[in-house]
Amino acid sequence: MSAPLVRRLALIGIGLIGSSLARVARKEGLAEKIVISTRSAETLRRAEELGLGDRYCLDAGEAVEDADLVIVSVPVGASGAVAKWIAPSLKPGAILTDAGSTKRSVIEQMAPHVPEGVHFIPGHPIAGTEQSGPDAGFAELFRNRWCILTPPEGTDPAAIARLTAFWEGCGSTVDTMDAEHHDLVLAIVSHLPHIIAYNIVGTADDLEAVTKSEVIKYSASGFRDFTRLAASDPTMWRDVCLYNKDAILEMLARFSEDLAALQRAIRWSDGDKLFDIFTRTREIRRSIVEAGQDTAVPNFGRDMAQAEAGE
Amino acid sequence: MSAPLVRRLALIGIGLIGSSLARVARKEGLAEKIVISTRSAETLRRAEELGLGDRYCLDAGEAVEDADLVIVSVPVGASGAVAKWIAPSLKPGAILTDAGSTKRSVIEQMAPHVPEGVHFIPGHPIAGTEQSGPDAGFAELFRNRWCILTPPEGTDPAAIARLTAFWEGCGSTVDTMDAEHHDLVLAIVSHLPHIIAYNIVGTADDLEAVTKSEVIKYSASGFRDFTRLAASDPTMWRDVCLYNKDAILEMLARFSEDLAALQRAIRWSDGDKLFDIFTRTREIRRSIVEAGQDTAVPNFGRDMAQAEAGE
Repeated sequence: MSAPLVRRLALIGIGLIGSSLARVARKEGLAEKIVISTRSAETLRRAEELGLGDRYCLDAGEAVEDADLVIVSVPVGASGAVAKWIAPSLKPGAILTDAGSTKRSVIEQMAPHVPEGVHFIPGHPIAGTEQSGPDAGFAELFRNRWCILTPPEGTDPAAIARLTAFWEGCGSTVDTMDAEHHDLVLAIVSHLPHIIAYNIVGTADDLEAVTKSEVIKYSASGFRDFTRLAASDPTMWRDVCLYNKDAILEMLARFSEDLAALQRAIRWSDGDKLFDIFTRTREIRRSIVEAGQDTAVPNFGRDMAQAEAGE
Repeated sequence: MSAPLVRRLALIGIGLIGSSLARVARKEGLAEKIVISTRSAETLRRAEELGLGDRYCLDAGEAVEDADLVIVSVPVGASGAVAKWIAPSLKPGAILTDAGSTKRSVIEQMAPHVPEGVHFIPGHPIAGTEQSGPDAGFAELFRNRWCILTPPEGTDPAAIARLTAFWEGCGSTVDTMDAEHHDLVLAIVSHLPHIIAYNIVGTADDLEAVTKSEVIKYSASGFRDFTRLAASDPTMWRDVCLYNKDAILEMLARFSEDLAALQRAIRWSDGDKLFDIFTRTREIRRSIVEAGQDTAVPNFGRDMAQAEAGE
């Protein structure tokens, strides 16, 4: 790449996503200058210690001045307030995007504040870990992952192309779809799994007959997988539940219906039905591994990771 | 170790668990001679090709002749038939154990067949992967994992000590408890997680509004974790559901009750309650990592595994 894609990149929010963006933008030379803003003075100081940007502002408005690309990565419930704050400082022609896990509510919150001449293109990188904060980010987070854009009708194609090129520079492949469909897809592939994981860990925690120490000791038999998702950022997930309520409730209803049928098969010892249910699901795993979205190494290769980390 | 712990080890069933036992027994010199038996001629041939034992018998009765330690690792529904088959050939003083995921039902099925003078000590190594068959095993499977023994009252302590030493030789730490408690503990740490994982993958597979290709592409946002558990051996899990029915139904009832409460908090936009639910679960994750039962590396270190496997 000869010249950076972006002259001035403003990152509002410097958690796992924001700080990974800062790192990959620096590493791949995607931006000439990186300006970082976040609500907490302490977190901003930490970002500075880590050398994530070129400038650091507590004032989000100041941070977006003269920026060509503004990426908001905050809990989705805060999107409206951020948009209102930065709107007067956005320069004409700038691209404003976000990384929130819900899209309809982000559009409802942000769109009314976006000034004429600014390209508002909501986005969502499908990548993450169970960790949060500026220390948790890494440049490779988006590599081989998808990024979904949900541009409103009539968005300037050239702006979409520029944002697409930025995400491709981060290692991602870009898909576009409408916000409503995004929220439905994410409800099943991300929101429901997290909610279920939080729930099962809570159920285990409440048992009187099984001690916490037993749950921990024997967790390698399945339970530990759920604890990873259930260790994700509570603020982020509270907001996801509040702001994608309809799609999540729809998926929860379907899940509970299916679980009732499975429970009935267990109660009535319907071995054939159980065998069928437990067989059809293998195919999806195979497809995910073939699509490069997970490792084929048993147990996610965690033993390898554990050995390498000297744990 | 100067002399092997076991003169003659008979392994009935040579899937993930049996073949891992064969490999670790060989590697650590835990047995002088390893005899392998399994129901399918094809699987037995494969075990021989892999050089897992010293002798291979389709007849399980023949395999246990003169064995000091017999380990049955078959789907729990087959335990009774295996016990009946091998009982007449077990030598006095031999230890008979198993690796089944349920213990009360295994005892009910096997105990009536066990001849006088044979030490029957049911067991369950808390280790596994989503893969199955003789090729899936590896010598390190049991390292740093727990193995639970559920010896009936009056079992010879010397026999328990010998079996404990064998599992310690495999790298495990041994716990003993009664069978009923085992079944309750495993229902929450293993059986419920697998059932829930199978269920959510099935729910996703049934959606009309979200395509299978979308589920696969965006699975890195949470869903893929569940597909690993849901790729486990269907026969094994059918049997677990059939043979630990009471404890599983109890855990499912609690889980559904908790999920209804969580769903209600979402419907009524009770952000504080959601935040509380999503906060308490982090502590368990930390404890599991501290106890060495999972890696602290984000995403289970699967990216590392993927890179190393050249995927």
